[in-house]
Amino acid sequence: MQTTVTKAVGSLDSNQPLAAMSIERRQIMAHDVEIEITYCGICHTDLHMLRNEWGGTKYRIVPGHEIIGRISQIGEHVTKFKVGDLAGIGCLVDSCRDCDYCKKDLEQFCENGNTIVYGSEDKFIGGHTFGGFSQRIVADEKYVLKIPDSLDPASAAPLLCAGITAYSPLKHWNANREKKVGVVGIGGLGHLTIKIAKALGAHVTVFTTTQSKAIDAKRLGADQVVLSSDDNQISQSLKLDIIIDTVSAKHDINTFLNLLAVDGALVMVGLPAEELPVSAFNIVHGRKSLAGSNIGGIAETQEMLNFCAENNITADIEMITIQEVNEAFQRLEKGDVKYRFVIDMASINNN
Amino acid sequence: MQTTVTKAVGSLDSNQPLAAMSIERRQIMAHDVEIEITYCGICHTDLHMLRNEWGGTKYRIVPGHEIIGRISQIGEHVTKFKVGDLAGIGCLVDSCRDCDYCKKDLEQFCENGNTIVYGSEDKFIGGHTFGGFSQRIVADEKYVLKIPDSLDPASAAPLLCAGITAYSPLKHWNANREKKVGVVGIGGLGHLTIKIAKALGAHVTVFTTTQSKAIDAKRLGADQVVLSSDDNQISQSLKLDIIIDTVSAKHDINTFLNLLAVDGALVMVGLPAEELPVSAFNIVHGRKSLAGSNIGGIAETQEMLNFCAENNITADIEMITIQEVNEAFQRLEKGDVKYRFVIDMASINNN
Repeated sequence: MQTTVTKAVGSLDSNQPLAAMSIERRQIMAHDVEIEITYCGICHTDLHMLRNEWGGTKYRIVPGHEIIGRISQIGEHVTKFKVGDLAGIGCLVDSCRDCDYCKKDLEQFCENGNTIVYGSEDKFIGGHTFGGFSQRIVADEKYVLKIPDSLDPASAAPLLCAGITAYSPLKHWNANREKKVGVVGIGGLGHLTIKIAKALGAHVTVFTTTQSKAIDAKRLGADQVVLSSDDNQISQSLKLDIIIDTVSAKHDINTFLNLLAVDGALVMVGLPAEELPVSAFNIVHGRKSLAGSNIGGIAETQEMLNFCAENNITADIEMITIQEVNEAFQRLEKGDVKYRFVIDMASINNN
Repeated sequence: MQTTVTKAVGSLDSNQPLAAMSIERRQIMAHDVEIEITYCGICHTDLHMLRNEWGGTKYRIVPGHEIIGRISQIGEHVTKFKVGDLAGIGCLVDSCRDCDYCKKDLEQFCENGNTIVYGSEDKFIGGHTFGGFSQRIVADEKYVLKIPDSLDPASAAPLLCAGITAYSPLKHWNANREKKVGVVGIGGLGHLTIKIAKALGAHVTVFTTTQSKAIDAKRLGADQVVLSSDDNQISQSLKLDIIIDTVSAKHDINTFLNLLAVDGALVMVGLPAEELPVSAFNIVHGRKSLAGSNIGGIAETQEMLNFCAENNITADIEMITIQEVNEAFQRLEKGDVKYRFVIDMASINNN
C-alpha cells in the first residue's frame, strides 16, 4: 500500500524526550478520510505510555488521542464528511465490526481487538499506529467524529478522550436530576466530569485534597466541595449515588465507598498502577459496587459531543506549541495544568 | 413489659464455650407470634460473632439466625399465621417500616437501624436481642416467614440466611438462562448458590481449591468445575456474567475479576475481615464491577422460600444436638461440614 510521509513528534524509548520525526500514513482508501490536525490534547495516559508505566508500549511512540482537525481528503465512498469539515479522532480508529460488542456500538470492548490510535498493530502498512502529535492522520470515517460547529475546536479536543471517559459512566450509571454524584479529583477528567454531571442535572459534590482547588470546583459547577483530607468534612458528606473517581495515583477508596448510598457505585476512570485495598464490609453493607469504565463507543462519543455542544461544554485548556511539549509533560506530572494542555498543531510546521 | 423465661445456649465472652443459660422473651403483643423452635442452622457469621471477630459483639450472646419452628401463640391482630403453622425467622426481626428502604421491601438497608435477631437493642424489654439457640422466640408476624409445607423443615432452616444471601444477588444481577454464573467456594453459601443458580436456568461454573469437592459440585448441579489453584484451568474458563464469591477468608479476587465478561459483576457475599487488593485494570477494562450483597428483604426472603419449594431446593445438612454445638463450631472453623450444621432444637429440653 502506498504511504505518504508526515511530520510527527514522538519518542524512541522510555527515557528519551519527545523529538521531531517523520512517520508514514496510508494513502486514503474508499472509506477513509485524511485529517489535517489542528489541535491535539495531552492526556495522562500519554505520559503513562511514553514512560511504559503500564508495560507494553511500542517504540517509537507518537502519542496523542484527542485529535481535532479539518478534513483534507476523502475516499470515494465517504458519506459522512466533505473536505473542510471539522472532525475528531479519539482512542479508537478501527475494530472488527462483527463481534457482539461492535454490533452494540461498544467498540471499546471489541472481542477481536480494536485498533487504538497509537500503539496498535497497523493492519494496512505494517508496524504500529501513530497518534495525533503529527500533521495528518488517516482513518475510516466510521471511527471519525463530527465536531459540532458551536464548539471551540481547541478546547473541544479533550472531549475526545476525557469527555467521553466522563460522559459514558455518568450515562451508564444513570446520572440525572434525582441523583447525587461525587467527583474525586479535579484534573483533566475531573473538571469535565463536574461540568457534564451538572449538565445532566445531578447534584455534584467534589472531593479534592487541594484547598486552593475548592474555589475553582465551585466555578466549574460543583454544588459542594469536600476536602478529602478532612475527616470532619468527609463524615458530613451527603450519601452519593454515583462517584466518579478520576485519580490515577494510589489512594484510599474505602473512604469513598463508605460515602455511597444503598446500591451506589464508585466508578474508577483513572488507572492507578498499584492495587487498591478494598474492605468487603464497604460493599456488602448497602449492596454497593466498585466499578470501572473505559472511554466509550463511537456512537456514544458522537452523542457526547452533541450533548456538549447543546450545553456549551468544553475543557478549560492551556494552549502550547509542539515545541513546548516536553515541558508540558513535566508540568502534567506535577499536576500543574488547568486543566488540559492542548497543542496548537500548526506549530509542527516550524519543526 | 412482662416476660417469660426460656432455655437457651450462648456464650458469656469471646473465649468461653457455649453453655446452657436462661433468657427472657417478651410476652406476645397484638401483632406478635411465638415460635417453638424446632431447628436452627449454624452460619459462619455465628462464629465471627461469638469470637467478636468483626468487633461490636454484645455478650452474653445467644447465636442462631436460621430458625424454623411451629407457631405456639399468636397475638390478637395476627392474620398471617395460626397456631401450629410452620414458620421461620432469619436475620431481621424488626425495622423502622417508615424509611425509603423499608417502604421498598429492603428492610436489610433500613435507614433508622433494623433489629437483628441477636445482638441488637431490644426495644421492648431492654438489653439486647437473643437468637435461635433457644426454645422459643417472639417476633412481629411481619418479619416471620411462612415455610412451604413441601420443604423439609430441618434442611430448610439454612435457607433463612444462606438461601436468601445466595438468591438475592442472583436475582438482582439477573441470573437467567442467558447468563453464565460462577460460584467461588463450596460451603454453606456456595452449595445453595449452585442449586439456586441452576434452578434460575444459568450455566454454572464452580471454583474450588479442593479437588475432592469437584465431584460434589457436579452432584450439586455445576456444569463446570475449575480448580482455582490451577492457572491452566483458570485461563481456559469461560467468561462469566456474574460471579458469586462466598469465601469469607482473604483470597485473590483479581483472578476472578479477570474472568468476568464485559459488564460482569463479581458479588461478594462473604465478609473477609482483611482488605482485598483490587487492580483497577481488572474493572476499568470491560466496565466490570466488584459488588457486595447482604441477605435480602422480608418479601424477597418469602419469594426465595416459595422458589425453593417449587424447585425442591433445601440445604445439604448434618443434624446435631445442641449438646454438640461446641464441637460443631470447631468443625465449622476447619470447613469440615457438608454443608450446613442444623441443630435439632428438641435436644435443648435435655439441658
